[in-house]
Amino acid sequence: MDSISRLAALFEKLPGIGPRQARRFVQYLLSTSPGVRTELADLIKRLGADSRQCVKCYRWYAKNSSAGELCSICANPAREAAILFVVEKDADIENVERSGFRGMYFVLGGTIALATEEPEKFVRIRELMRRVEEDASQLLLNELILGLSATTEGDHTREILMEKLRPLSEGLNFRVSSLGRGLSTGSELEYADPDTIAQALGNRH
Amino acid sequence: MDSISRLAALFEKLPGIGPRQARRFVQYLLSTSPGVRTELADLIKRLGADSRQCVKCYRWYAKNSSAGELCSICANPAREAAILFVVEKDADIENVERSGFRGMYFVLGGTIALATEEPEKFVRIRELMRRVEEDASQLLLNELILGLSATTEGDHTREILMEKLRPLSEGLNFRVSSLGRGLSTGSELEYADPDTIAQALGNRH
Amino acid sequence: MDSISRLAALFEKLPGIGPRQARRFVQYLLSTSPGVRTELADLIKRLGADSRQCVKCYRWYAKNSSAGELCSICANPAREAAILFVVEKDADIENVERSGFRGMYFVLGGTIALATEEPEKFVRIRELMRRVEEDASQLLLNELILGLSATTEGDHTREILMEKLRPLSEGLNFRVSSLGRGLSTGSELEYADPDTIAQALGNRH
Amino acid sequence: MDSISRLAALFEKLPGIGPRQARRFVQYLLSTSPGVRTELADLIKRLGADSRQCVKCYRWYAKNSSAGELCSICANPAREAAILFVVEKDADIENVERSGFRGMYFVLGGTIALATEEPEKFVRIRELMRRVEEDASQLLLNELILGLSATTEGDHTREILMEKLRPLSEGLNFRVSSLGRGLSTGSELEYADPDTIAQALGNRH
Repeated sequence: MDSISRLAALFEKLPGIGPRQARRFVQYLLSTSPGVRTELADLIKRLGADSRQCVKCYRWYAKNSSAGELCSICANPAREAAILFVVEKDADIENVERSGFRGMYFVLGGTIALATEEPEKFVRIRELMRRVEEDASQLLLNELILGLSATTEGDHTREILMEKLRPLSEGLNFRVSSLGRGLSTGSELEYADPDTIAQALGNRH
Repeated sequence: MDSISRLAALFEKLPGIGPRQARRFVQYLLSTSPGVRTELADLIKRLGADSRQCVKCYRWYAKNSSAGELCSICANPAREAAILFVVEKDADIENVERSGFRGMYFVLGGTIALATEEPEKFVRIRELMRRVEEDASQLLLNELILGLSATTEGDHTREILMEKLRPLSEGLNFRVSSLGRGLSTGSELEYADPDTIAQALGNRH
Repeated sequence: MDSISRLAALFEKLPGIGPRQARRFVQYLLSTSPGVRTELADLIKRLGADSRQCVKCYRWYAKNSSAGELCSICANPAREAAILFVVEKDADIENVERSGFRGMYFVLGGTIALATEEPEKFVRIRELMRRVEEDASQLLLNELILGLSATTEGDHTREILMEKLRPLSEGLNFRVSSLGRGLSTGSELEYADPDTIAQALGNRH
Repeated sequence: MDSISRLAALFEKLPGIGPRQARRFVQYLLSTSPGVRTELADLIKRLGADSRQCVKCYRWYAKNSSAGELCSICANPAREAAILFVVEKDADIENVERSGFRGMYFVLGGTIALATEEPEKFVRIRELMRRVEEDASQLLLNELILGLSATTEGDHTREILMEKLRPLSEGLNFRVSSLGRGLSTGSELEYADPDTIAQALGNRH
């Protein structure tokens, strides 16, 4: 394969990119200055060296954005340490931040597909248990929020985590909660699906 | 205006129908048998006489679907009379039924726009108060659920109703609740809007 | 079935209307005045009596829009009688008129599916032959334009009509043409499908 | 700006990429192996050195895909040299190839916006003239096809090129043609815009 086709093939692996858009990326890069291409290439090559995975929440962060081994959120003493929000992936955190949440996070690394044996191999269950034990034994943890997708896999993941967290939660005296289900902002009853209405009814307040 | 154009103009008033589709309706009717057109015309002409608005819930129903002055739901003794679900419009009821709800309904007739004076003129607030007083004074009512849209107007309507219902609710001992807000079925945290996440956090359980 | 459900079922037969929108039509009609419903019903019931199919082009028109047995286009002496535009259905005529065409029309009544035996039973092939013979024998016809869809069925229909029209066209000295294929207004080469590009190349000028 | 944000900012400049997808690209790269990142970075950095712009058609190609100074199409003696297809950009060529065209290409480099002074500064008009003179003076050129977008800017560009090409075309005896306009494959008369119908009528055959 020639080098232009090879580059397009690598671009095609980026999430959401098809062969046509991959080719357009190459054309775009051909039309930019060598300086831009060099900067892009350097940032990609050094991405591993420039980034660090937070040892507390497993989020990736740029080394030059936070001094030590913790990301800027975990290192921030103003955050509410007593509430731990478990998310599936890094991108969820940005969105939750926009909602005004000011507690801590833990990145699970995905959801657990149905009938998965040894889910610990796929998502950070062990790491979550360890984190929770640490926080709770220091009397730091009041509540753990499971912020999983409102999908079949999200529900399955929540059940597995619930079961594993129950003994800890009872022994170490913290609450395990799930995000509320129901009508999302902007939706109307006439167009809501029956399951969402059932959840909205079940969670009425 | 000729009669074909006039018919198309009337079809254009149907919800969601533009001039092109209105014309297609006319073409479709021209291509059907006179028998179908006559049946359709008769059903439309007799719609008022064939229909009745339920005196309890204000839903429209076909006279031949229910014997008396009540719609089939209000007339059904197996329904749970202690829970009253206030909806905006008839179409909401079909959707709520699909979710498995088995209580009673009240059709408000719309939402209240911001800065509306005398909202009683636009939606059935007085009729709702009367219904609630009747039910509650017979000790029939345990809970009233406000099933309004998760929109600014829906929220505004809920606040107005809440305020008006509070004295009744305290005096007659029933609960006023709202549908749960949060992630709707199928949604993911990464793509949820911040307000929905804030609601899902507020309604975590 | 009760009368409201029956009306919704009839609305559901209108082109492009699903069960939910059909119900909304009923709700809309319930909310209008009896006078509007009566007018709509009368127009639908009298649609057959109020309309007439043009004996020349087979288009439907309102009796009160044209005096005699011809629609307003066929009755208009200012139209160019020497060019006959064959369309699939009435709705196509409105669109062709917007393009500035000022000749005559003939409504075929549809396209011919592949492997159709006796296509004369489904579309107005015999009527078209008769019309063409009449026009051409009076030396009225210079050109017949086949204005069929750019689809497989449209192409198949064109081929069948071409074959049947060839002897007439040669004997009576008129031209049979097809609409140009190629890039439609607003389209770009990068996003055009290969067949459209091939057609645009074949029809370059 | 930290290095992760800087990388996302550069990804955001890729055509069609917003801030959210740019972040997802970074997350994807963080999750791949260092080997993949290094290969991607190297291909981007070397893109300029690995690529060459064809001296005949101005298309970009990978050096390792064609030996000399010509791209694989211009270097291919089996291509029909007498037909020159002028396209706006490299990506158009791939699409035209799919349509079965087997002549030669020239990449103009864009379209000319209305009221552009000195259009030679923005697109390769001078280079096109030189190429055409060379080909035509060697009696190599029979036809030049202007394959521009069916948009206002495309039409404007075509007119400018037509005017500039006319003296050459007459003196050197080659034809200048434009792609056919009309119904694109799959389209129906009822939904075609009036301008497309007018073009399809004008280009009937």
